[in-house]
Amino acid sequence: MATHHPHPEDHLTSSVILQDIVIGLSDGLTVPFALAAGLSGAVESSALVITAGLAEVVAGSIAMGLGGYLAGQTEVEHYASERAREFREVREVPDRERAEVDELLAEIGLSPETRAAAVRELTANPEQWVHFMMKYELGLEEPDPKQAPKSAATISLAYAVGGLIPLSAYFVTDSPTQGLTWSAVITLVCLLLFGYFKSHLTGQPPVLGALKMAGIGALAAGAAFFVARQIS
Amino acid sequence: MATHHPHPEDHLTSSVILQDIVIGLSDGLTVPFALAAGLSGAVESSALVITAGLAEVVAGSIAMGLGGYLAGQTEVEHYASERAREFREVREVPDRERAEVDELLAEIGLSPETRAAAVRELTANPEQWVHFMMKYELGLEEPDPKQAPKSAATISLAYAVGGLIPLSAYFVTDSPTQGLTWSAVITLVCLLLFGYFKSHLTGQPPVLGALKMAGIGALAAGAAFFVARQIS
Repeated sequence: MATHHPHPEDHLTSSVILQDIVIGLSDGLTVPFALAAGLSGAVESSALVITAGLAEVVAGSIAMGLGGYLAGQTEVEHYASERAREFREVREVPDRERAEVDELLAEIGLSPETRAAAVRELTANPEQWVHFMMKYELGLEEPDPKQAPKSAATISLAYAVGGLIPLSAYFVTDSPTQGLTWSAVITLVCLLLFGYFKSHLTGQPPVLGALKMAGIGALAAGAAFFVARQIS
Repeated sequence: MATHHPHPEDHLTSSVILQDIVIGLSDGLTVPFALAAGLSGAVESSALVITAGLAEVVAGSIAMGLGGYLAGQTEVEHYASERAREFREVREVPDRERAEVDELLAEIGLSPETRAAAVRELTANPEQWVHFMMKYELGLEEPDPKQAPKSAATISLAYAVGGLIPLSAYFVTDSPTQGLTWSAVITLVCLLLFGYFKSHLTGQPPVLGALKMAGIGALAAGAAFFVARQIS
């Protein structure tokens, strides 16, 4: 790592995008792969596997993208409403809010004298006081309102890209069984690479991360295959 | 609300479980519903829609549950490694870490004199110092290691329950078209109720939340139906 403590906002932005790609790609690689694998054990036609797979990719991509968008929007609204409440409390019950500041400062280990000075200085400006309460009492950072649509688009696209990889095998093979073989090879390789890369980024052991990711995919596909074969 | 500021840990625990149920249920109601709707426009047999739907529910439930479990595990490991790093830094480069504390205290509006006393008191104890850095520099709360398996089970189960609701309609009807009609009615009612309840819990406008949730489901199902019909 070049810089030891990256600027918090830079750090946040890059990790939010990567996090969104990771969310979309890991589900996109896994669920359509497993669904297609499941159907391969139950139907005779590759076209049917492709139809179901694409329907799943479209449905999942929309559900995840819109879900991400609305979750981001809710976070922005939640921050704004909590902030408005803190401003109201600072104005209406300043003594109780001052006692809360004092309590938080005691928790981080300040002496009564230092706390008295700190509470006086910190509560001199309502803007600063509310900022302190938001961050130190509620643990909330101000969300970026432009983040929600960006996240939605990233998750949605990553899911679709991830989902087309396992389905691609069924386009170029003659039977669902052949399709499944190639789909499993391609997808497990992608899950291994993706798990390796993701763990590397987050500072986890990369080989273990690769195996975990591929393991989820294999387990989901195996279970779907078993269930579909049982009922068909 | 009975208590104004609930104990932070109580608040956290209950909201984590509810959050997990919401995650599982909202995806479970939406994606299998949309997949089944998509296939209903492309195939003649309800059995096929059920096979694909159940394969999807199994795959999604495993992928989401295991995904949630591993994400929780990673969070625990990440916290432990960041904490070890802060302890190392406090020991090896105490002056730089003291300057970082001073910077955080300047940001909340304390004067140079108060900061000098506060930095001295706060850094007297390494345990307390590291706790401050973890929480206020890095914004990390200590995750509960028992949370990961609990979250996995909750998300997985909620997804499966959610997914069986739209599929149930195809069990009791004669054709995919009839199944789709009843599935859409049942699922949209559930999405409306679920969106209302969820928004109510998080303090958002409940009617709007109900409409958003049902809107995502309808859009995903409509798109899946359109795509499946085009290619079949």
